[in-house]
Amino acid sequence: MQFHGNGFEPGDPELNNPAEKFKSTGAAGALPEEIDVLIVGCGPAGLTLAAQLAAFPEIKTCIVEQKSGRLFRGQADGVACRTMEMFNAFGFAERVLKESCWVNETSFWKPDPKSRKKIVRSGRIDDTEDGLSEFPHVILNQARVQDFYLDIMRNSVTGLEPHYARRLLDIEIDPKNSGKPVTVRLERLDASHEGKIETVKARYVVGCDGARSAVRQSMGLELKGDSANKAWGVMDILAVTNFPDVRMKNVIQSDKDGSMLIIPREGGYMARLYVEMETLAAGERVRSRNITADSLIAAARRILNPWTLDVKEIAWWSVYEIGQRLTDKFDDVPAGQEAKRLPRVFIAGDACHTHSPKAGQGMNVSMQDAFNLGWKLAAVLRGISPPEILHTYSNERQAIAQNLIDFDREWSKMLGSAKKLDASETQKYFVKHGRYTAGTMTKYSPALFTGDAKHQALATGFEIGTRLHSAPVIRLADAKPMHLGHVHKADGRWRIYAFAGEGDAGAAGSAMAKLCEFLNSSKKSPVVKHTPKGTNIDAVIDVRGIFQIPHRGMVVEALPKLLLPAKGRYGLLDYEKAFSPDFKQGDIFDMRGIDRKKGCVVIVRPDQYVATVLPLDAYAEITAFFARFLKVV
Amino acid sequence: MQFHGNGFEPGDPELNNPAEKFKSTGAAGALPEEIDVLIVGCGPAGLTLAAQLAAFPEIKTCIVEQKSGRLFRGQADGVACRTMEMFNAFGFAERVLKESCWVNETSFWKPDPKSRKKIVRSGRIDDTEDGLSEFPHVILNQARVQDFYLDIMRNSVTGLEPHYARRLLDIEIDPKNSGKPVTVRLERLDASHEGKIETVKARYVVGCDGARSAVRQSMGLELKGDSANKAWGVMDILAVTNFPDVRMKNVIQSDKDGSMLIIPREGGYMARLYVEMETLAAGERVRSRNITADSLIAAARRILNPWTLDVKEIAWWSVYEIGQRLTDKFDDVPAGQEAKRLPRVFIAGDACHTHSPKAGQGMNVSMQDAFNLGWKLAAVLRGISPPEILHTYSNERQAIAQNLIDFDREWSKMLGSAKKLDASETQKYFVKHGRYTAGTMTKYSPALFTGDAKHQALATGFEIGTRLHSAPVIRLADAKPMHLGHVHKADGRWRIYAFAGEGDAGAAGSAMAKLCEFLNSSKKSPVVKHTPKGTNIDAVIDVRGIFQIPHRGMVVEALPKLLLPAKGRYGLLDYEKAFSPDFKQGDIFDMRGIDRKKGCVVIVRPDQYVATVLPLDAYAEITAFFARFLKVV
Repeated sequence: MQFHGNGFEPGDPELNNPAEKFKSTGAAGALPEEIDVLIVGCGPAGLTLAAQLAAFPEIKTCIVEQKSGRLFRGQADGVACRTMEMFNAFGFAERVLKESCWVNETSFWKPDPKSRKKIVRSGRIDDTEDGLSEFPHVILNQARVQDFYLDIMRNSVTGLEPHYARRLLDIEIDPKNSGKPVTVRLERLDASHEGKIETVKARYVVGCDGARSAVRQSMGLELKGDSANKAWGVMDILAVTNFPDVRMKNVIQSDKDGSMLIIPREGGYMARLYVEMETLAAGERVRSRNITADSLIAAARRILNPWTLDVKEIAWWSVYEIGQRLTDKFDDVPAGQEAKRLPRVFIAGDACHTHSPKAGQGMNVSMQDAFNLGWKLAAVLRGISPPEILHTYSNERQAIAQNLIDFDREWSKMLGSAKKLDASETQKYFVKHGRYTAGTMTKYSPALFTGDAKHQALATGFEIGTRLHSAPVIRLADAKPMHLGHVHKADGRWRIYAFAGEGDAGAAGSAMAKLCEFLNSSKKSPVVKHTPKGTNIDAVIDVRGIFQIPHRGMVVEALPKLLLPAKGRYGLLDYEKAFSPDFKQGDIFDMRGIDRKKGCVVIVRPDQYVATVLPLDAYAEITAFFARFLKVV
Repeated sequence: MQFHGNGFEPGDPELNNPAEKFKSTGAAGALPEEIDVLIVGCGPAGLTLAAQLAAFPEIKTCIVEQKSGRLFRGQADGVACRTMEMFNAFGFAERVLKESCWVNETSFWKPDPKSRKKIVRSGRIDDTEDGLSEFPHVILNQARVQDFYLDIMRNSVTGLEPHYARRLLDIEIDPKNSGKPVTVRLERLDASHEGKIETVKARYVVGCDGARSAVRQSMGLELKGDSANKAWGVMDILAVTNFPDVRMKNVIQSDKDGSMLIIPREGGYMARLYVEMETLAAGERVRSRNITADSLIAAARRILNPWTLDVKEIAWWSVYEIGQRLTDKFDDVPAGQEAKRLPRVFIAGDACHTHSPKAGQGMNVSMQDAFNLGWKLAAVLRGISPPEILHTYSNERQAIAQNLIDFDREWSKMLGSAKKLDASETQKYFVKHGRYTAGTMTKYSPALFTGDAKHQALATGFEIGTRLHSAPVIRLADAKPMHLGHVHKADGRWRIYAFAGEGDAGAAGSAMAKLCEFLNSSKKSPVVKHTPKGTNIDAVIDVRGIFQIPHRGMVVEALPKLLLPAKGRYGLLDYEKAFSPDFKQGDIFDMRGIDRKKGCVVIVRPDQYVATVLPLDAYAEITAFFARFLKVV
């Protein structure tokens, strides 16, 4: 898709009617007095959480935002492969694939050894290594990502819309109240209600309100970290240039004029430039420098020499100082008091960690925070899991944020130190850290939801604690070639992927048949124990079977009942539970290192992370694993 | 996507809010008095044409429909690969891919030789041969296909909406009026305007009003063909069955109970059954038999023996007699008078040809009719081409329809004669005709828009007269892996795909550079001659270059100017004109039999059909070809 060719136009490029394109949305009227979850802040983290909670009709959610409506330009733009996988679970990956710019390769430029005032290309690499994800790394305006979430919310069973123009005043927690213990006061900011105060009682409050988070401040938590001392400029431009790689991602290090990143943008014409500017004094803020857009352009031109840059339009620009900062906790329970208190207030995204934008991590990590928290909150509110599971949010995500900030700090230093580092070193580092930027390096340590590595050898390519790395399969009943990971929707369900051993077609007496029989009927089965009466057999735990036998060699009518379950008011059969390898694309058993002889069970969390790998006949261990965090119903 | 699991629910399965899902749409108010094109009928043909014309702000189109609003259930459901390619050009293929059921394999069932009252599987084949198209054959309710078109129209620059509840009364053509010679009278059918007559003057009228077309009748044309003597039933059902292939396409021939087709449907639970019913007397209509839904179910059960069928809900059902019928002309110019008269009224789709539904051709051929007509009408109305080109519509499409009806007749006979034909013969025939059902067999004969085969050897895989068979490429400037055919949008533009010879990187002096220089600057160039002043260089003819050299070996900054054109108000460079093979997927030069030494030029019509293949240096022939049908501006 090509757009912005005659100037930047915000909103959906497929809509031509301004009345549709710039339609004002948002919930009308006052906030309800009592709700389950109040989300503060309508950025990527807040909207990921809202979209997750909106899927459950029994949960009453509100999301409030200071701004008066939708975002239209600027801010983040990097969408990592891992984030695309999550978007696919939410059901809008295809929209992002269509509209975004795909980052396929990254070029590196350095001073020409023969004439150091000029830059020359020093290398070019694949942006994402082959096979890392079935999705590409793409670039799309944060505003559009938010639009997609708003659509998902609007179209959901709950029809959730943000309440705009609300400023958080204060939060109070009443520890004695086990119902809706959090009282929040908000001030309305729109002209017709200016100054009106609303009071909301909620079970949980989540601050997704950015680096200056009022929710974080109300919890007495602080962003700790480096004081920034380097100013950077960022701008989205429409420009004519003879720089040949302007539609690639570029890491440019000039001799004496600093560094620059070029990020190609959606629509085929726009580019984002990250331009290194001045070094700041200790404690100095970038605002004090009064940096202008013209000075950004001038700096970009110096760095780009000998290539020309004729900027025709600036769609958005900003200056910022690099800062990698982090809070100790992502919830309101002080360290060490986890056993005594349950969390009631959480923070996510920039409210708890800030990065330099150049590693493309900020928006992605923020959304993953919210995806991690969302299903846990939903499980507690729906009575599937006890509230103690909520402690895992801060534990899991704080460690990940720390990890990423360490990476980001290293990466930023590297970009900011052209004189010391060779471009080839940067490039090497970049290759090495491709998985970080793809978002696939996140690994949760063994804890409540994450098993140990005892049986990891049964499926070496499904690393425990990391996201399920999808692979191609053929769906048995209709021979559809598809990705196994795409059965995983953002619906709060756990998944058991049972991989059959050699020759096992699921016939009576086989290991697969016995496992399915156990899961379907035994009193000890987690499926039986944790699935509420009157709901479908796969309402809480969704079991899928993958066989080694080519799909035409399988007998659908002989599948275990659990893999052809009767569902819904009519008892219609669900034909989408059983798979064979897609040999044209590669055998999933080989691709993911599954023990061909023994097969295995891979248990996957609602947020797509591998919880554990177990033997096909480890019934007691399967039972025990789910008993850790699912209630008996 | 799974839906309909608790009963059939019409509308967009991603919308939960009934107010959104069943929103009444359509244009408010009276019809304008004067317009360019009046389309009668809001089915697949009418909407394809409307969506095409809606893309041009300078064309005033209206589409009227007898029904009071959107379609919600029933009717056609097969979407051929070729149709998916067209949907991609219209910009909604990804929505269809997501929501539809993919037909991957077809099973054949015949009487068990050991017990002829029972059916057994006699074979299973790939539904579509590998590599035939980059899109699958899919199944989706006609209502949803229409919804997608309605969205495209609503979102277009013209915001076109149908005028519902209008019945055509009569059409009058004033041959002396060269402006808006067609006067149409319509009656409003909605309660608040009942009986009100509207009169519209139009340049052109297109009847897409089905087998009983009032437009066709007003032209004095007749559907001619076989009298039908076989009744068939069709039903969309939610059922529980132990028939193992219910999620495949099935061709079932029972011993004495007739034939049946099973078509798996979108949402994972629904299936369509085509059930052979009674033989009719000569001239007898199926209505006279009073066939009930229960009798359809009973017949389906007999055919399916020994497999069970427990129908829980019928979403839609109908009975029909097979009839293959066709009109002699698709416009109002009597045969032989083409030199004296210009066409003013056209018919498309079922108005000019009817098929048995079982070959899955009706909806597909109808939409291709409209796609053929749409760009021609637009070219005339926009002043790009003279009105004489409009004669080609009837000529081209009538021949194709005749062809398909011959095929359909053969196929229907085969299905209706289980006793005479072996199932393996049916299967053989099915394989042979897979390309017909995929919609890729359409081939236009040499005529105004179709060159002769003189230079076909330069690109054996781009057969002149057939649709451009896409292949994978890498876009040079951003290294994006994509399909070459996907640059082709339904925007009325002609395309020149220039394939470079061996070693040609587009550098000065190369054959590619010379061709581009000629096209960009020569007074004889069709690009120069036919592109209106003040519009982009690619506004009428869009030139793309494909090189044999791997993309990292190409020098973007050395590309000919025509392949890096400055466009729009800012003169921004369009980086999407040049490509290299995607060697990971296959070399397009090998895949499409392009002469490696010489390269070639492939000229493609706005409806994606290969117009001609010429040598890279055949400037005079390129000029002469476009001069046949493009005006000098």
